[in-house]
Amino acid sequence: MEQGKKDLHLYVNIISQPSRAIIIFCKLNNIEAEVHHLDILKGEHKTTEFKAINPMGQVPAIVENGFKLFERLTSKIRSHAILKYLAGTCPGVPDNWYPSDPQQRAQIDSILDWHHGNLRRGATGLFMAEVIFPMNGAPKDTKAIADAEKTLQSALSNIEDIWLDGNTNFLGGSPQPSVADLILSCEIMELELLGEEKYLSLLDSKQKIRKWLGNVKETLSPHFTDVHDSLIRAFQNKT
Amino acid sequence: MEQGKKDLHLYVNIISQPSRAIIIFCKLNNIEAEVHHLDILKGEHKTTEFKAINPMGQVPAIVENGFKLFERLTSKIRSHAILKYLAGTCPGVPDNWYPSDPQQRAQIDSILDWHHGNLRRGATGLFMAEVIFPMNGAPKDTKAIADAEKTLQSALSNIEDIWLDGNTNFLGGSPQPSVADLILSCEIMELELLGEEKYLSLLDSKQKIRKWLGNVKETLSPHFTDVHDSLIRAFQNKT
Repeated sequence: MEQGKKDLHLYVNIISQPSRAIIIFCKLNNIEAEVHHLDILKGEHKTTEFKAINPMGQVPAIVENGFKLFERLTSKIRSHAILKYLAGTCPGVPDNWYPSDPQQRAQIDSILDWHHGNLRRGATGLFMAEVIFPMNGAPKDTKAIADAEKTLQSALSNIEDIWLDGNTNFLGGSPQPSVADLILSCEIMELELLGEEKYLSLLDSKQKIRKWLGNVKETLSPHFTDVHDSLIRAFQNKT
Repeated sequence: MEQGKKDLHLYVNIISQPSRAIIIFCKLNNIEAEVHHLDILKGEHKTTEFKAINPMGQVPAIVENGFKLFERLTSKIRSHAILKYLAGTCPGVPDNWYPSDPQQRAQIDSILDWHHGNLRRGATGLFMAEVIFPMNGAPKDTKAIADAEKTLQSALSNIEDIWLDGNTNFLGGSPQPSVADLILSCEIMELELLGEEKYLSLLDSKQKIRKWLGNVKETLSPHFTDVHDSLIRAFQNKT
């Protein structure tokens, strides 16, 4: 192994937002890692072998020189701790991804704390109720769909009015993208799987969000668009 | 103002777990701050004056030399970003609170990410459904109570089996308390307001959690117990 090079393994599934964020982040920053795609539908995250890595049996997880770091799946998936760790320890990652300045960092941390109970809850809740559960033959739960959409609408308004307040290119007034931009945009991209009409109607009145998503795509492509194209193809094959 | 001294204002409410964690943290670390207790029931967090500090109109919030940092209230309250910021910028805070070692820090971050969608969701959900909503005259929502208790039981099992795995005094294998111990223990203490019988039954099979709570109380007192005694008194006056 080269000096300073990590022996890094990522355990991911393309359907999960935090998995996508981690894959894109590593590609953008030339972080070499062995990527293990686990097929959740086949239960590959519940094997004894994988539970030795993550006792909760969930992706995403990383193993780096024997150090295990994992996070919860289902509505509790988050890539926050993994991305912060990679940003802080991989050589050459630009400071804007997770700023070392305490006030800028606190701003990013606040957006990520907010994300857990708001955008993620709404977006994942709606995606699960509208797409995933019916794929498995369950009838659509109209109350769950309405509740999730209400949470999502409120979260989108918060992004528009608070996190994108002012004439700013990225979240929290940052001139460059941070892990918060990556995580939140990967969440919103998932809404495309609800169908074009629904996706456009959710963002119809959100001019700042649409401009910000354009900035994210422009700055983080081709990796950002590549990964989300793969996501859409994966669902086209299933439906 | 003395050199290096912060002009720090905390906006809190004793009923909120993250508010309590911040109050205790500042007392433990001799961080001088002007504490503003906002009466949420009287709507003091919805005034124009307070919304200039936190546009979401929620506690806890801090203002330090004009820098505003806030987090969401209701089921989204979190003190994570505020505590990390104070640990990193207030002189003399021991490293164990939020370790500078990247792997130890990632471990703490993972516990806090997990906290959002698990322990907090279960404990606050149960507390709101069992105590707060009925205080305002609403009938008890038995489904909401059952759902929250299921999430809480699962979260307590995770703490017992994973975060307190091994013969460890504090969460994640740490020999000293971190912000994760403070935040999670403040959450569990709130369960005492469900009544002694319920509290004891929830922790009955959780030997490691009971030992860990003993360690937390011993290490962080008198401030930890003082603040929670105030919480219990506040509710005795209301019921």
